[in-house]
Amino acid sequence: MNVAIFGAGRIGKIHAANVARQPGVSLKYVVDVSPEAAAELARQHGALATVSETALGDPSVDAVVIASSTDTHADLIVRSAAAGKAIFCEKPVDLSLERARKCADAVSQAGVTCMIGFNRRFDPTFAALKARLDSGEIGEPEMLIITSRDPGAPPVSYIKVSGGIFKDMLIHDFDMFRWVLGDDGQTVHATGSCLTDPAIAEAGDIDSSVVTIRTRRGRLCKINTSRRAVYGYDQRFEVLGSKGMLQAGNVRPTEVVTYTSKAVYTDVPEAFFLERYRAAYAIEMAQFFGALIEGRPVPTSIDDGVKALELADAATRSWAEQKIITLGASQ
Amino acid sequence: MNVAIFGAGRIGKIHAANVARQPGVSLKYVVDVSPEAAAELARQHGALATVSETALGDPSVDAVVIASSTDTHADLIVRSAAAGKAIFCEKPVDLSLERARKCADAVSQAGVTCMIGFNRRFDPTFAALKARLDSGEIGEPEMLIITSRDPGAPPVSYIKVSGGIFKDMLIHDFDMFRWVLGDDGQTVHATGSCLTDPAIAEAGDIDSSVVTIRTRRGRLCKINTSRRAVYGYDQRFEVLGSKGMLQAGNVRPTEVVTYTSKAVYTDVPEAFFLERYRAAYAIEMAQFFGALIEGRPVPTSIDDGVKALELADAATRSWAEQKIITLGASQ
Amino acid sequence: MNVAIFGAGRIGKIHAANVARQPGVSLKYVVDVSPEAAAELARQHGALATVSETALGDPSVDAVVIASSTDTHADLIVRSAAAGKAIFCEKPVDLSLERARKCADAVSQAGVTCMIGFNRRFDPTFAALKARLDSGEIGEPEMLIITSRDPGAPPVSYIKVSGGIFKDMLIHDFDMFRWVLGDDGQTVHATGSCLTDPAIAEAGDIDSSVVTIRTRRGRLCKINTSRRAVYGYDQRFEVLGSKGMLQAGNVRPTEVVTYTSKAVYTDVPEAFFLERYRAAYAIEMAQFFGALIEGRPVPTSIDDGVKALELADAATRSWAEQKIITLGASQ
Amino acid sequence: MNVAIFGAGRIGKIHAANVARQPGVSLKYVVDVSPEAAAELARQHGALATVSETALGDPSVDAVVIASSTDTHADLIVRSAAAGKAIFCEKPVDLSLERARKCADAVSQAGVTCMIGFNRRFDPTFAALKARLDSGEIGEPEMLIITSRDPGAPPVSYIKVSGGIFKDMLIHDFDMFRWVLGDDGQTVHATGSCLTDPAIAEAGDIDSSVVTIRTRRGRLCKINTSRRAVYGYDQRFEVLGSKGMLQAGNVRPTEVVTYTSKAVYTDVPEAFFLERYRAAYAIEMAQFFGALIEGRPVPTSIDDGVKALELADAATRSWAEQKIITLGASQ
Repeated sequence: MNVAIFGAGRIGKIHAANVARQPGVSLKYVVDVSPEAAAELARQHGALATVSETALGDPSVDAVVIASSTDTHADLIVRSAAAGKAIFCEKPVDLSLERARKCADAVSQAGVTCMIGFNRRFDPTFAALKARLDSGEIGEPEMLIITSRDPGAPPVSYIKVSGGIFKDMLIHDFDMFRWVLGDDGQTVHATGSCLTDPAIAEAGDIDSSVVTIRTRRGRLCKINTSRRAVYGYDQRFEVLGSKGMLQAGNVRPTEVVTYTSKAVYTDVPEAFFLERYRAAYAIEMAQFFGALIEGRPVPTSIDDGVKALELADAATRSWAEQKIITLGASQ
Repeated sequence: MNVAIFGAGRIGKIHAANVARQPGVSLKYVVDVSPEAAAELARQHGALATVSETALGDPSVDAVVIASSTDTHADLIVRSAAAGKAIFCEKPVDLSLERARKCADAVSQAGVTCMIGFNRRFDPTFAALKARLDSGEIGEPEMLIITSRDPGAPPVSYIKVSGGIFKDMLIHDFDMFRWVLGDDGQTVHATGSCLTDPAIAEAGDIDSSVVTIRTRRGRLCKINTSRRAVYGYDQRFEVLGSKGMLQAGNVRPTEVVTYTSKAVYTDVPEAFFLERYRAAYAIEMAQFFGALIEGRPVPTSIDDGVKALELADAATRSWAEQKIITLGASQ
Repeated sequence: MNVAIFGAGRIGKIHAANVARQPGVSLKYVVDVSPEAAAELARQHGALATVSETALGDPSVDAVVIASSTDTHADLIVRSAAAGKAIFCEKPVDLSLERARKCADAVSQAGVTCMIGFNRRFDPTFAALKARLDSGEIGEPEMLIITSRDPGAPPVSYIKVSGGIFKDMLIHDFDMFRWVLGDDGQTVHATGSCLTDPAIAEAGDIDSSVVTIRTRRGRLCKINTSRRAVYGYDQRFEVLGSKGMLQAGNVRPTEVVTYTSKAVYTDVPEAFFLERYRAAYAIEMAQFFGALIEGRPVPTSIDDGVKALELADAATRSWAEQKIITLGASQ
Repeated sequence: MNVAIFGAGRIGKIHAANVARQPGVSLKYVVDVSPEAAAELARQHGALATVSETALGDPSVDAVVIASSTDTHADLIVRSAAAGKAIFCEKPVDLSLERARKCADAVSQAGVTCMIGFNRRFDPTFAALKARLDSGEIGEPEMLIITSRDPGAPPVSYIKVSGGIFKDMLIHDFDMFRWVLGDDGQTVHATGSCLTDPAIAEAGDIDSSVVTIRTRRGRLCKINTSRRAVYGYDQRFEVLGSKGMLQAGNVRPTEVVTYTSKAVYTDVPEAFFLERYRAAYAIEMAQFFGALIEGRPVPTSIDDGVKALELADAATRSWAEQKIITLGASQ
């Protein structure tokens, strides 16, 4: 199986290395807006740096991995689908819900496989929690609390094109909500503030948010996010069920405990997503190719990407218009 | 200093024992709707069982402890204030915000001391967190997450007269919010469901709720509550600050850890409020009498009681009317 | 039931307060080498300060609590037994094994009840571990690791008359060993060093020790102690069993967790024995009087005191003579 | 750099995969008593299956990895040294102290690099503890407690040729002792029992042991081991220092916490050494080749292997002869 990867940046490198590790899979092309970056990454994996036309036009390419900037996702999905390639695409599908839906249509019409990189579903701790929940260990889920905080805000230049905190950062949390509870949202309430850097407010965005989703079955979900948690990447969630509670905690680099006359202390959580989700990135890529090879459905479809975006859209409106949003029947 | 206590039930007994432990303080009267209960509690502490007229009419009585049912609080506060007694009253002041405000006026006009039993402020873990926050250990607070879950729902007969989950159960959490953040709410959003017992819904109430408060300074507070956490009384909160995070966890009966071939396990949290807040009840009573004896202001005034009720009222309306409530300037 | 207490120092005060709390028990006399200390403690509890002859000669006195200095224990036990009083005596019975055995004989001949204050057996965490072990949760015990460290060394003047670290400090751990494993030692090996203060070595003692006991059934016990753990009073043990492991951990003053950019930290353990074993002291006194009133045997007999001393004696010889000691059949 | 590996079993496969990952390093030969096993492992890494004569006789081979059975180590070390190859050898050097010393002489005379696979030094948690200790965070070390327990005993057929628990299992712990404390043993006391399976006693060995080492500077070390901890691979240690304590704990597969009405539970530790020390195996191989390429000394020399064996020898004698062993000046 031959693969072309789009994007040779931070996340592209991770995906390239994980592609290269799959048995029976060969990385054939690397495409990037920077020819130097493409060439360097191609060199590391014995691949060729090229342009998208070549990569998509080569009939020996079975699958593409889209890890380029968000504004290129939709176009590459549509073209890859038209070329009959299996697609792995980083989240989000697009910042526009309309365009995202068109992508989903294109994928559907072409009948190709398309998996969205909701990496958190593959984190060993989160996946173990989900398995315990599904096995009934805590009965029926009633309440889900998601804590999702980055160690620090990205540059304001990035924030300006990010689509806002709800589409950029909470898109993951909206997917987690759908995945964990297996339920759809009925109402969404979002509020937030700019507390860490006034430049974020000037860019029209916020850095701290609280979202409440009430599902059709009456279950409750709260998401709290911040662009800045100085103690590291804080990724936790807990589910209260009718027969107990499950918590998924952070991971520490080491298990050293230090006792001094003042305090007992341990490591802070893993620094950021590359550290925390290292295993998750490897597992999601293995599952993508495993699904392709064995003909199974992928675990995170483009519909999951569209639905997370619908929630992000609703949250953005709730925050901007200061009202409770009722989600449509299609959500 | 002589004291009369109103209410000889579960909480009355705790307060009576703590009153009896204060140096220089003597429990003189016990009043209860059940003469037997009053007599029994009076006997244990060498006090007299009597009626409210006698207790309030005795000029040697300096202070009263009101631990009777909620619907008697307002009347007893007003009459005790008129009689010039210092007052310790269990939360809530009243279920009606209007009546609560009248009580506050009566206290103010009489110039008597009145402390509301917001026991959680005196919990050693919560108080230590507050002290660390105030000392600047985590910089400015930005987000407060309160988890407040009872081990099981009270009888539906109680729920029917409780004033609803927001006034009955979250009244504590609204006070915690004000105390921890030292800020006032600007908007309140509340939603909830009845997930544990349909009889609660039939009684017009819910058992699971999520409340979001945005403060005037833009800080965010989320409160999640349930009437049923089968693993015990779950009372935690965490504060995200500009320089770190503080968490206040549950307390376990013992520090035993058991390792088996299947799992590593510890005790569940303390069973309910009598166990978890044993120390807090003792400390609040010591602070009440300490304030009286030394002429200091009490740490939880009747205004705190009124303000918590204002939030409970707003949350109730937000839930019932499904809208975001903007709090008045007076809040 | 009337009680006389010997010793009005730190531990005497704790016992006096706990005696005063027992229903149906009255503290009648306080005896101390310092008449002022006796008078002060007597005043607090409405008792009389007196001398030992009066206390022991008063036929209305049913029980005595011996909390005076170690060198007075043997004489008071013998005299109290002769006077027919029930006895609660702080550990150790005596520093001399021979004299301790004579005390046990005197108690036995007089037919009086005598309980030794091995307070650790009554610590809620330790007692819960023991109950789980006895219930078979981890199968048969195989190995016991006891960690027992004080926050700081006592004055050298005390160390000189203490009988050495094994009789003064490890006496508790030897009792814990016997209680937890329910087995007798066959061989004892002890070694140690003076690492915290050269003055302790000059006084002929050590401050750090490691003891290994192999029981008759082949079970293994290791005890490690230090006079100095700057992070607080460190009192833990763990039992490896055929089907699992049990650990009994330290207790923290609060459950606050602080996250900063450097570390995640919690409280250090309780400062010293008065804090850590507060509940244990109350429970042991309740059990002493409960046993007297209900005619049950006391949980820690004078034979337990003698047997712990036998182990301390063997450890002292093992350390001093640098050899493995085989315990006699009588142990 | 070309490499030959001896041994294609469980540990050989791990080392082969880690060798293959080193940049600039190529696995050229695989040697095993089973030609099929050698061929299969060679196939996976594009290497050749061959015999030792060929591998050692090929001048293009720069380094060898010895991961074959213990009884072949000495011969392969001597022959590899004579052939001028750099050597990475699994622990132990040999079961005979005399032969191990001869190997060290052979390595020394040939002037080749030889690293012994004491993998635990490279565990991220253990290495972080060591770094904190060396940085002075807890002052001077005074006491070291090593807990080292396997999940289950190997077959008795293996135990019979293992050299006994002290040389087979504690060899790692003796190296940890030397590494952590940076001190040499002066006296050794060892005792133990056969508690898990009578067949082990019939084979002349024990399955549970306790070792005490007192160092020349008077520091104390206790090691407790068992062949069976049903809850998983238990690998912990703690260091008490003059200014604090450091603990290195076990690693859990996931950070899920489950609350039920009975208990709060987490995962058991990683199952065995392949899981727990996965990172350590990768790091030690990177350090071996890093040292070779950059001309630095290896972190664990053959002298470390000899010294750990001296301690194992002393412990074996202490246990068998039931006496305290004083170590020679050479240790």
